[in-house]
Amino acid sequence: MVSPSKKQKVTGGKPRVVLAYSGGLDTSVILKWLCEKGYDVICFCANVGQQGEDFEAIKAKALSCGAFACECPDLRAEFVEEYVFEAIKCNALYEGRYLMGTCFARPVIAKHQVAIARNYGAKFVAHGATGKGNDQVRFEMCAQALAPEISCIAPWRDAEFIESFKGRTDLLNYCQKHGIPVDAKPKANYSVDENLFHTSYESGMLEDPMVQPDESMFKMSVSPMAAPDKKEKVRITFKAGVPVAIKNLTDGTEHTEPLAIFEYCNDVAGRNGIGRIDIVENRFVGIKSRGVYECPGGQLLREAHLDIEGLTLDREVKRMTENLGLEFSKFCYQGFWFAPEMNLVRHAMDYAQKDVDGFVDMELYKGNIFVVGRDSDKTLYSADLASMDIEDAGESFDYNPKDSQGFIRINAVRLKMFSNREAKIAAAKK
Amino acid sequence: MVSPSKKQKVTGGKPRVVLAYSGGLDTSVILKWLCEKGYDVICFCANVGQQGEDFEAIKAKALSCGAFACECPDLRAEFVEEYVFEAIKCNALYEGRYLMGTCFARPVIAKHQVAIARNYGAKFVAHGATGKGNDQVRFEMCAQALAPEISCIAPWRDAEFIESFKGRTDLLNYCQKHGIPVDAKPKANYSVDENLFHTSYESGMLEDPMVQPDESMFKMSVSPMAAPDKKEKVRITFKAGVPVAIKNLTDGTEHTEPLAIFEYCNDVAGRNGIGRIDIVENRFVGIKSRGVYECPGGQLLREAHLDIEGLTLDREVKRMTENLGLEFSKFCYQGFWFAPEMNLVRHAMDYAQKDVDGFVDMELYKGNIFVVGRDSDKTLYSADLASMDIEDAGESFDYNPKDSQGFIRINAVRLKMFSNREAKIAAAKK
Amino acid sequence: MVSPSKKQKVTGGKPRVVLAYSGGLDTSVILKWLCEKGYDVICFCANVGQQGEDFEAIKAKALSCGAFACECPDLRAEFVEEYVFEAIKCNALYEGRYLMGTCFARPVIAKHQVAIARNYGAKFVAHGATGKGNDQVRFEMCAQALAPEISCIAPWRDAEFIESFKGRTDLLNYCQKHGIPVDAKPKANYSVDENLFHTSYESGMLEDPMVQPDESMFKMSVSPMAAPDKKEKVRITFKAGVPVAIKNLTDGTEHTEPLAIFEYCNDVAGRNGIGRIDIVENRFVGIKSRGVYECPGGQLLREAHLDIEGLTLDREVKRMTENLGLEFSKFCYQGFWFAPEMNLVRHAMDYAQKDVDGFVDMELYKGNIFVVGRDSDKTLYSADLASMDIEDAGESFDYNPKDSQGFIRINAVRLKMFSNREAKIAAAKK
Amino acid sequence: MVSPSKKQKVTGGKPRVVLAYSGGLDTSVILKWLCEKGYDVICFCANVGQQGEDFEAIKAKALSCGAFACECPDLRAEFVEEYVFEAIKCNALYEGRYLMGTCFARPVIAKHQVAIARNYGAKFVAHGATGKGNDQVRFEMCAQALAPEISCIAPWRDAEFIESFKGRTDLLNYCQKHGIPVDAKPKANYSVDENLFHTSYESGMLEDPMVQPDESMFKMSVSPMAAPDKKEKVRITFKAGVPVAIKNLTDGTEHTEPLAIFEYCNDVAGRNGIGRIDIVENRFVGIKSRGVYECPGGQLLREAHLDIEGLTLDREVKRMTENLGLEFSKFCYQGFWFAPEMNLVRHAMDYAQKDVDGFVDMELYKGNIFVVGRDSDKTLYSADLASMDIEDAGESFDYNPKDSQGFIRINAVRLKMFSNREAKIAAAKK
Repeated sequence: MVSPSKKQKVTGGKPRVVLAYSGGLDTSVILKWLCEKGYDVICFCANVGQQGEDFEAIKAKALSCGAFACECPDLRAEFVEEYVFEAIKCNALYEGRYLMGTCFARPVIAKHQVAIARNYGAKFVAHGATGKGNDQVRFEMCAQALAPEISCIAPWRDAEFIESFKGRTDLLNYCQKHGIPVDAKPKANYSVDENLFHTSYESGMLEDPMVQPDESMFKMSVSPMAAPDKKEKVRITFKAGVPVAIKNLTDGTEHTEPLAIFEYCNDVAGRNGIGRIDIVENRFVGIKSRGVYECPGGQLLREAHLDIEGLTLDREVKRMTENLGLEFSKFCYQGFWFAPEMNLVRHAMDYAQKDVDGFVDMELYKGNIFVVGRDSDKTLYSADLASMDIEDAGESFDYNPKDSQGFIRINAVRLKMFSNREAKIAAAKK
Repeated sequence: MVSPSKKQKVTGGKPRVVLAYSGGLDTSVILKWLCEKGYDVICFCANVGQQGEDFEAIKAKALSCGAFACECPDLRAEFVEEYVFEAIKCNALYEGRYLMGTCFARPVIAKHQVAIARNYGAKFVAHGATGKGNDQVRFEMCAQALAPEISCIAPWRDAEFIESFKGRTDLLNYCQKHGIPVDAKPKANYSVDENLFHTSYESGMLEDPMVQPDESMFKMSVSPMAAPDKKEKVRITFKAGVPVAIKNLTDGTEHTEPLAIFEYCNDVAGRNGIGRIDIVENRFVGIKSRGVYECPGGQLLREAHLDIEGLTLDREVKRMTENLGLEFSKFCYQGFWFAPEMNLVRHAMDYAQKDVDGFVDMELYKGNIFVVGRDSDKTLYSADLASMDIEDAGESFDYNPKDSQGFIRINAVRLKMFSNREAKIAAAKK
Repeated sequence: MVSPSKKQKVTGGKPRVVLAYSGGLDTSVILKWLCEKGYDVICFCANVGQQGEDFEAIKAKALSCGAFACECPDLRAEFVEEYVFEAIKCNALYEGRYLMGTCFARPVIAKHQVAIARNYGAKFVAHGATGKGNDQVRFEMCAQALAPEISCIAPWRDAEFIESFKGRTDLLNYCQKHGIPVDAKPKANYSVDENLFHTSYESGMLEDPMVQPDESMFKMSVSPMAAPDKKEKVRITFKAGVPVAIKNLTDGTEHTEPLAIFEYCNDVAGRNGIGRIDIVENRFVGIKSRGVYECPGGQLLREAHLDIEGLTLDREVKRMTENLGLEFSKFCYQGFWFAPEMNLVRHAMDYAQKDVDGFVDMELYKGNIFVVGRDSDKTLYSADLASMDIEDAGESFDYNPKDSQGFIRINAVRLKMFSNREAKIAAAKK
Repeated sequence: MVSPSKKQKVTGGKPRVVLAYSGGLDTSVILKWLCEKGYDVICFCANVGQQGEDFEAIKAKALSCGAFACECPDLRAEFVEEYVFEAIKCNALYEGRYLMGTCFARPVIAKHQVAIARNYGAKFVAHGATGKGNDQVRFEMCAQALAPEISCIAPWRDAEFIESFKGRTDLLNYCQKHGIPVDAKPKANYSVDENLFHTSYESGMLEDPMVQPDESMFKMSVSPMAAPDKKEKVRITFKAGVPVAIKNLTDGTEHTEPLAIFEYCNDVAGRNGIGRIDIVENRFVGIKSRGVYECPGGQLLREAHLDIEGLTLDREVKRMTENLGLEFSKFCYQGFWFAPEMNLVRHAMDYAQKDVDGFVDMELYKGNIFVVGRDSDKTLYSADLASMDIEDAGESFDYNPKDSQGFIRINAVRLKMFSNREAKIAAAKK
């Protein structure tokens, strides 16, 4: 592994490393192992909305295991405002289906991890992600983009570490030896990652693409089968492409702060069975992977945003944002959040969305989102212009149906030339 | 309007026109009007799967109204095999939401319309589409691409016709005067277009984007609220990107012929409340339009196809087909089905999909499609390669987790250079 | 044609039209013809850098032919700053070869034409472009985008006008009848369009793609054969993607104002035989067209700009700007300068180019541009990082050659999976 | 480094490696070093058109240095037909300027390298490319895609090798010690790579982007200053997008075999000073690099191909091939020649180019290529349709100039809606 003494001038103290710490088995072992390697370890456990997480307990465990310090900043509002809502703005979707909840959490975590490293004068950051996944890439790409002077330590790619810990048993033995407390719960037969935006499940039993997960696995949503048998109606209001309010038209609940809006989206969509997905996707490291996700609030906001775009975006701007959205999604998924190309896409998208204002009314019912109405002060829709009624065939908005003839005929000019050539080629072949 | 005598040498007979005829008010008036203008009118009413249509009655009405002939070919199988399944292959979707049922029916209709025109020696085709919609474009673009020598007559863009028929009353008066039978039903407060792939609703009351359609409007699906309260499980099998079988795993029903497969998809998805959508979209003529659609079988096949692609398409091929799919969808929507650029996209897609084989199991429930399993002889997925278990961190498939470090570090080289420059620029500004 | 009385409320005066006027045969006839139709005609002849144009004479002719007024604003600086330099910023190129000089002049002309129309209270603009070309589209798209309330009159698409003027003879007879002075020069066997950015030649003898133009045709450049037999060296300096200085390193001449820079680029490149091209291109109206162009300054700036981008743009930003540049070029060519999609592209490009600073040294010689050096304060190039010398194989910029192994191996993971599948499929076929 | 014993079952013999061998200093050292490491080394020096290379001497040197065998297959015809002409078909260009000669040679070399490995039962291939360049990536990506079971050895990324050879002196000492003959010529102050398609120069003095190379460096072309002072005229004929004949219209020379055509293109373009370029480009490993290239024949063919496309490709097909060409170029440059996404692009391009037939006449003069005429049996150009002459404004090819009005007006519908909204927003702000 990277030798601290080689990289960092130690002036009267140990080299320091900021470890992304969860309090779980792996990162607790890593914490101790880094201590043994001669580092002062600052543990870092970002609050990005993990359900039921006890950050005080994590802090206590970290310090009891030998951490130099432990930081657990609450990044939830920043996560929603600068990451989740950016994704909504871009209709982000990976490979046609995945809303990418994990992807958005990584950059905000990495940003604060390197900030803490700089505060503590640490030249290293470390994480417990495996060498086969996307998260190692996302963490490190973000860290290196933001702080090129900081090096990344990834024990699960370190030959010595891997040699020492060949399986769960080795990890448990190490804990026993070093007095590291271990969670009594047996290991689930899948792995979980969780934040405000989604919960993801993969590995273990889920590695067989024919095996269906058990209902007990899910955390953020009820199944559509278990959801209430009546509709609930909400109105989401957008300004410049991001949500600024949600109102439950059934019971009158209303929220206007970003974090509160998003939490309520999760709540109302989750209780109506919205946002689960089960896919096989392509990791950036070239491996296909099966994942199950629940992302209730994200799914709800995505549908609403697509709909308000329908009313407010010009056709060709919409077409361009579809292309930009594919790029945005790829960059997110692959960890290029702080890359110059991402800056460019986000800058373009902000501009494209500047007049995406208005509200969308939706009914939620057992996994379904029905858009039932929408309106905007900045609409480009005109009922008069759209009307097919023959009484109105004339001059509304200066639209003259007769013009369509020329439009069609000119659009067909090259098709006719091409067709004539095809006929000539076919004739020549006989 | 186009004067027949100017365009067509009449040798001992009237000029002939093939009219896309529905038996409804508008096209019946147009039929008579074209007769009055001196044409022999061949009526053409393609069977593309309109529910409950009585083609014998349409034929009888056409002939009674003065048609020279009336042709009602059954195009359903061709429509499914050469249009609908092409769209499934491409995951076709317009503006992120619309499955484009109308778009796919237009080319197959136009193709047969010009074929009939050539059979009858007609130099004209005509339709009853308005001058503000997409269908005029699609019909005529397809017709001109296939038969550049044939001219299109569109009475709803003809100054004299429009002047004569300023509203429904004028049409009804004309019918009365000419003894054209009129449907006793009062006009619905919206317009309907229907084929095997979908039913679309627009105009009238739907022109207000805040007005929700009445449940009674829908034809192909029940509402999720009215759908059965238990899941139904189906398996769809693909070969080269197109469905080759559907089996209901709940009751054993099975189909393997394209038309039967698609009809069964509509049936099973429709009865489970799947496939409705309500959107504002951008017409090719530059007008925003509100449409409500139901497309149960298309929605089911799209989800299944996306899923089997997950298992069988290489990541970068997938990325490229997403771009090609956007082009395909735009071309479809705008009427460029028989254009050279469409030939190119379809040719590329056929190649990209050649190994998209396998099956997908899905549960259908009240508007939901849950993918619950998938498998393929041509899978690119490997559970061993994907596994995150540390025991397996080593050499499966020659994948070495340690390589990820180099992968990440090299990918970050330009990000670090960029970051250093940003820091330098920021420092210079101080 | 559009009847003025129908469109414009005439309160104590005639309807007014602003005619894009060149003083030539066609627009002089149109001027008189519009007068006869009952319009007050305001002639408008924009100075966009046509060589040797006498705007006073044009004005006098317009007034003598019955114009209500004649405006000849000098738009050269605006043309360079807001159009030409935008194109340079985007490396604009149509179909891989055409620098699009005509395209950029149309929007600046249209912008001022509608501004003058508003000043004069005119509800119409008119032009003498034909019904088969791109210019009618560009003029009118720009005018309608900027001033939807103004209507466009295009006599060469007007049935009555076309009927009246079936050939050059009819035009000349009309001039004689109405006392319109006619240029004594016989008509050239090709048509010319000219502005600061380029001169274009098409039609007439050039309609045969095998016919080579005569050397006497060209206006802005000498032929490479006639150019001096020694090199001339210039340095062009960019800031934020646009030229801010040009210095002739051979003779010391220097310019720093946009218009002066561009005029000097034309001068120095033109006298060295740079910038001619002869192509067949695709008009927006679906017709293929042969054009010959000379664009010396544009060619010079394009090469310089590409080169400075090499030093200052991140790789992925470069890739994205190539895609955006294709869109920009299509929008320009097709007349969508003032369209919302163009606003988006330009906004994105401004951002992408914000650090494209530096200078490029070039030698010009008989049609050749040799880049011989470049430098930038904002370079992303590092000689140390780039160096292949084995002595330096190590840790410069934290680049470790050993990392490349992991980079390659991870990039190859999916290729190996794919290859294995191909082998399996091939084996199964046997 | 990769230990042979670990990867390859040695049954009564040494493990074998196929080394890409040039006979130069680096690969001669590597040859010996691999022998010392216990490998049987099969040297492989592909003939891809390096000028003045003596393959017999290379073979002799390899064997004298201990090679088990040495293979020098002549790949020139295959290189031209399956790689160079593919690039011409796609108008391949990296970052707007680089014709990518090195990129095309790597896959053909790798393909034969792994074929030889399989013949010899070797489980390893090796090369002398550095750890900072593109070539290591291209070699290995191609090798791994074609033969996933074969491992790559790259001594310049091997810690022990790098440690042993810190500079040229170490290499020379090693040669002296092992009796490896060393070229008497002093090392040039730049590195050269050479094949039929181009010669590239980089490193050394060229690492300073302000330093201009000396004229003596170039091998395939004279400088434009030294080129003859009269024009030479050639006709190049294409079929399905690839050249099938070249004829010198000045002296009558003619060639119709792919290799002969390409060699003659190099010859005639090179002697007229065509095809040099000097750029800063972005390597796949994230490093910016300065390269000087000469590619006379490639430049000539590219211009000719672009021109014949002008006559024979539909506008929208052209647009799509521009996008596909960008992908093709990126894949080439980055080493993904045998990747599934490249298969897709090439398959699509073959289809797009199937009717790109015809000839292009060009005059060559001191670095300039003037297209002076072109024709095709499959032209989509029509002089009648293109003609701007008013006499012909009417019905040729059924084109009616009046239709343009409708075309323009319908295209402007959304622009007017947008403009009205902008005005409304602006008014609201006051």
